[in-house]
Amino acid sequence: MTFKRSALIACAALAAVSFTAPAMADEAGEIKYRQAVMKSIGGHMGAIAGIFKAATANQPNLATHTQGMLALSGITGSIFPQGSDFGETEALPAVWEKPGEFSKAVKMFQDAAAKLNSAAMSGDMAATGAAFGGLGKTCKNCHENFREKKKQ
Amino acid sequence: MTFKRSALIACAALAAVSFTAPAMADEAGEIKYRQAVMKSIGGHMGAIAGIFKAATANQPNLATHTQGMLALSGITGSIFPQGSDFGETEALPAVWEKPGEFSKAVKMFQDAAAKLNSAAMSGDMAATGAAFGGLGKTCKNCHENFREKKKQ
Repeated sequence: MTFKRSALIACAALAAVSFTAPAMADEAGEIKYRQAVMKSIGGHMGAIAGIFKAATANQPNLATHTQGMLALSGITGSIFPQGSDFGETEALPAVWEKPGEFSKAVKMFQDAAAKLNSAAMSGDMAATGAAFGGLGKTCKNCHENFREKKKQ
Repeated sequence: MTFKRSALIACAALAAVSFTAPAMADEAGEIKYRQAVMKSIGGHMGAIAGIFKAATANQPNLATHTQGMLALSGITGSIFPQGSDFGETEALPAVWEKPGEFSKAVKMFQDAAAKLNSAAMSGDMAATGAAFGGLGKTCKNCHENFREKKKQ
């Protein structure tokens, strides 16, 4: 192996590390990332609600939102890493203190998102509406048990 | 046809109408829907930025966000319907007064989102970073030309 080639590999390895190294992530960064993911989830929820209230004529966009919810539900478990429980966050210590219960709540959310998407794909709007209601309940469940109460 | 059956069909038709009828959509509803979609887009952008700054260890979630951006870019053209240019919106009249220019700006955004997603799928992080920068420029382009300046 020439020096040039080994240096190149070292550089590539370094680049890979600097991209993937969790060591560079910090509490504030993780909290901000979590809030960004939640923002995207909230946007989809609001959009689906608008479609169901017929407040928008964009019903053809329904699947984009239900697929988006499904995809985002899939990463929800990952946005509460250890160490992201301090700082500017509304997440309660219960997330990390009761990991079993929290995982169950996340799983309920994921299952509900999958059900909503399947219903939307089937075109059965009554089932989709019911599934959307079910999904809302799993949001509420998690927010009531694992998120700080909103200030009045 | 029995009365019961025809009543059932009428109800079903009514239900279908109340779901799909654009007539029920109004300016305020369309604006709220647009803001929900933009919120979801903003969430993904923030999440991707966090990943690139390595502020989060959730690099494996990158594809979820780039796919989400791609899907949302696909419906962006639809969230500015005629009649949604009044009320609580920061969208400028230029959106509707210069439809050709606006469409071009939307297309640039869509192309950039597709490029970002392809780069992320390929695993080439340098290309993905460059594509993310390119996507940001198309956001800025639209916001500068078609959105009210933010209040200082």
